This record gives sequence, structure tokens and C-alpha cells, in this order.
Amino acid sequence: MHAASTAVLISEVGPRDGLQSIKTIMPTANKKLWIDALYQAGIREIEVASFVPAKMLPQMADAAEIVRHAKTLEGLTVLALVPNLKGAEAAIQAGVDKITIPVSASAAHSLANVRKTREEMIEEVKRIVEYRNSQAPLVKIEVGISTAFGCTLQGLVPEDEVIWIAEQVIAAGVDEAGLSDTTGYANPSQVKRLFSLLRGAIGEKAGAAHLHNTRGLGLANCLAAYEEGVTSFDSSMGGLGGCPYAPGASGNVVTEDLVFMFEAMGVNTGIQLENLFKAREPLRLGLPDEVIYGMVPEAGLPKGFVVDHKEGM
Amino acid sequence: MHAASTAVLISEVGPRDGLQSIKTIMPTANKKLWIDALYQAGIREIEVASFVPAKMLPQMADAAEIVRHAKTLEGLTVLALVPNLKGAEAAIQAGVDKITIPVSASAAHSLANVRKTREEMIEEVKRIVEYRNSQAPLVKIEVGISTAFGCTLQGLVPEDEVIWIAEQVIAAGVDEAGLSDTTGYANPSQVKRLFSLLRGAIGEKAGAAHLHNTRGLGLANCLAAYEEGVTSFDSSMGGLGGCPYAPGASGNVVTEDLVFMFEAMGVNTGIQLENLFKAREPLRLGLPDEVIYGMVPEAGLPKGFVVDHKEGM
Repeated sequence: MHAASTAVLISEVGPRDGLQSIKTIMPTANKKLWIDALYQAGIREIEVASFVPAKMLPQMADAAEIVRHAKTLEGLTVLALVPNLKGAEAAIQAGVDKITIPVSASAAHSLANVRKTREEMIEEVKRIVEYRNSQAPLVKIEVGISTAFGCTLQGLVPEDEVIWIAEQVIAAGVDEAGLSDTTGYANPSQVKRLFSLLRGAIGEKAGAAHLHNTRGLGLANCLAAYEEGVTSFDSSMGGLGGCPYAPGASGNVVTEDLVFMFEAMGVNTGIQLENLFKAREPLRLGLPDEVIYGMVPEAGLPKGFVVDHKEGM
Repeated sequence: MHAASTAVLISEVGPRDGLQSIKTIMPTANKKLWIDALYQAGIREIEVASFVPAKMLPQMADAAEIVRHAKTLEGLTVLALVPNLKGAEAAIQAGVDKITIPVSASAAHSLANVRKTREEMIEEVKRIVEYRNSQAPLVKIEVGISTAFGCTLQGLVPEDEVIWIAEQVIAAGVDEAGLSDTTGYANPSQVKRLFSLLRGAIGEKAGAAHLHNTRGLGLANCLAAYEEGVTSFDSSMGGLGGCPYAPGASGNVVTEDLVFMFEAMGVNTGIQLENLFKAREPLRLGLPDEVIYGMVPEAGLPKGFVVDHKEGM
């Protein structure tokens, strides 16, 4: 293999998680340019769209077209979020490589978010797996367990309920289950403990860490997850998806800062930082009125910064 | 002992590091109110002033008065920065408990910052220790090794030079030597490696971690230092000392966010978060035109957040 293997996978969620969280609708042509630029920077997994009714999320009305475009980029894992079987059918028909299904760990959040109990949502996951198995067995399915670290509605989310959901969805046939700090409540000790429990329960099917920066702990929590053996991380370019430095923010971890942290540590992401910063330009052009965050792009790389890509690691 | 022992010491540097970095001069009365509020929240070490010529830093013209006021707060370690013997004499005469001396690890930064070579600065440290030994043997002396993780002037700072300075100043008789990421260049791996080397070289005299958030890695770096055994951390309320989220910022780690991280992890700081947030009010009143940062104060504590103070740990 010519290219160095990557030590961690950065899964860019901006085109889905970011764009669906803001009112402005990014034109389809700009979305494509942005996804192309992310790919050029070395990103190899992008959550490009959400398959939900266009009436509900007009920002995602072009989901199928975006998937078809992203599929032209060789080696890119094209990921889409689906909340139900209908969405999964549409995503698979559009040609995605992977779908991600959110399942709330919080009983209160599940009802508020998808109007389903957690048990009903697990049944929906089973139906999606059956559809996938019969129609598109090569498509991967991940479940992102949301509110895994606490809930703005019910507060504490018992850890055994989080793990129970992970076990249920793996038993249902999904390929991996990750943990999402939807509310920005997580702390590093909790992140380590819960990912350790998750790995204990579902082994190598333990999936990505989707961590937020709402309370400033985003990168510290990513570091904790990495130290616990997590190698797949969701993040959003420019922190898109609500201001990551303000109250009430969805506060996704900023891709640029996360990649910088890993690369500075000598942990290969496969992503070129300078090219990643260039990918902010099509994002800005597509959303001229949004604030695009990122502390490393603003402060600049350290003088003499050298990324030491270790071959074959 | 009635109160739980603290697991980490948070040393608040805002009244010195913060206030001397901004143009506005906080009135003496406001400084006192702010220091009182920090103390009320449970902070037990505050860097209250810098002893430098008032012509150079008019923000610090009231240093002696501030020290005398802070000394009325029982159990508070009153710390002041001094760049030279003259400052040390003034600080000790004012009644400080502890002085901190910055020594640059970067040869280029040392010349630019204090117009002394590193060797000359080590000689100055020796003179300060001799003065302390003869005049005020109970006063503690720490050296903060600045630009320990890299330098905006020369880039890389060799790690053996950082450790050499630590060994020299400990040999000169100072009580502890800590590491400062003056430029916001540090990453978690480097923080662990350098604090490990420091402890290997000077043992229990390894001092505080003074880490910046210039590139968003402040808390991740604090976590790394904590995991390496560091138990003393410098931080600044509201990130005072240059916007911590902007280019060119001095970017001190925000005290409120740092204390939240540790308390959420169950690591006792001895600080009450709600009271700490209240201490932002006198800061705001004293500096009405400054932006006071802090992601946890803005986002609020997680619903149901309980700090589990472990007695006697």
C-alpha cells in the first residue's frame, strides 16, 4: 500500500448534521463543491444527507442527488442518516454505502424526537436491517445512540440502558453502534467508562464517538475516547450545526481542530490540514451568512509544524 | 479535617495574567471585590499581581495594595509574578506567600521578552533565591518555564533545553518548576511526554501546568497533564488575557470550564461551580467593555448535575 494507513477515521457530518440544523438552505451545487473539497483534503467518510420528508427538512430535499454525486468520489464512504424504514429505502435506492440510525438512550428524548419509544425504535431498526439484508446486503448500518451521556429533558441516562440499546441493535443485525453526546453533557471519565462498557458488551462492533463541544470539553472527550481505543470520530467542519461556543448550541466538535489535535499527536488521520482549511472556502461561499468556527484555522498552524505521517501504521 | 481534601489545585491567574494583557485598567476596588469573590468560590491560590514598573504596566500599579488586601483572606496563597530581583524585593516586602518567575525555554523568546539570555535569567533566579533565603525564607518560589511547547519566534523548542532549565532553576533553589504553553502550541502527547521528562528530572518539584486554549486544545491538554500526574493548573476566569477563541489570543484556559471538567470527572477542586459563576459578576463590573468567555457558564450546568465530593481523598 502506498498511502500510510490511518490510525483514526474522521467522519465528516457537516453536510448532514450541520446543514440540517440551520435555516439557510445551501444550494445543491455548493453542497457538491464542498463535499468535493472535503474529499480532496483526504476525508474518506462523509455523512452527506438525511433522508426525511422534504416538508420537514427542506435543507435535505436534494438528498438523493447529493448521494449520487458523492458516489462519484472513489473510495469515499457515503453515509446518510435515516430515522425510519422509509428513509432507509430511499437512501439505499439512492446508492449510499452506509446508513446511520439515531436511537435515543433517553426515554424522554426518544418520545420527543421521533415520537417513538425506544422499544419501538429498536423494532424499526430490525425492519431496516431486514430490508437491507434482502435488498442491499453490502450496505453497512450503524446506530448512533443519542443522549448517551445525559439528556436535557430527563437529566441522567442510566448507563445500563445505553448498553442495553447497543446490545439490542447489534442483536438486530446492525454492523456497529456508537455513542453520541447529543447534549454536550459528557466528561472524559464518563466517555472512557461508557466506551469501555460498550466494548465489553458488543466488542469490535463498538462504533464512532460523536461528541459535542457545547461546554468546551469536545476535544478533551475525543482524547478520552481515543485513549479508550475508539478510532472513529464524528465532527463537523466549522463546527457547523449550531454555534459550538454559545448557549443552546448543538456544538459539534470542529473537524479542523480535531484533525489538528490528532495530527499534532502523530496520530494519522489521512487528512491534509492545509487542504482541509481550503475546504472552508466552498462552505463559506455556500453559506455566506453563517459563522464558520475553527480555532486552528483562525490561529494558524504552529510555526514549524510538521506532520509526521508514519507509514504502515 | 472537615473539608474534603482537593485532588487538584486551580491557581487563578486572571488578576495578573488577565488584567495585564488588556488595555483597560481595572480599578483597585473592583480588583479587591473580584479576588474576594474568587476566594468565596473556594479558590485557594490566586496570582494577584505582577511587580513591574508602573510605567511599563499601569494595570499593575496597585500591586502592593492588592497583595495586602489578598493577604486578609485566610488560607489563600497570594502569588505574584516577578521578572527580576527588584520585583521580587517589592513583592516580598508587600507580603506575598509565593512568587513566580517566568523563564523562557526559547532562546529567541527570552531575548525578546526580558532582554536577557536564558543563562542570564537563571542567574537572576539565583539572586532572587538568595534574597528570599536571607529575607523571607517562608516565601515559596516557582519558575514557570514559558514557551516550553514551542515558540512563535523560533518554532521548535528542544525538549532537552526545557528540562535543562528546570534542572538549573531547581539547583538554584526554587521550590518548583512548571511548564507553560505560552504560544498555544501544545498537544496532549507532547504534554504527557514533557511532564513525564520533567518529573524524571526534578521529581516532586515538578510544578503547575499553564496551558492555553489558542488552538482549542486547552482542556484536552489539561486532561493529558492530569493523567500524567500533574495536580496544579493555572487558568483564568472568563479566559481573560486575550480572547481564548480568536487569532493572536493569549488564550488562557477558562477557569470555569476547567473546574467543570474536573468536577464532572469527580476530581475535587474544592471550588463550588455556582459560586464560581457568581464571581464573573465583579469581573464584568470591573471591566464592562471586555468580553468574558466561558462555555459552561453560557450553556449552563447539565440538568441534574451533581458534584460528588469525595471526603478525605
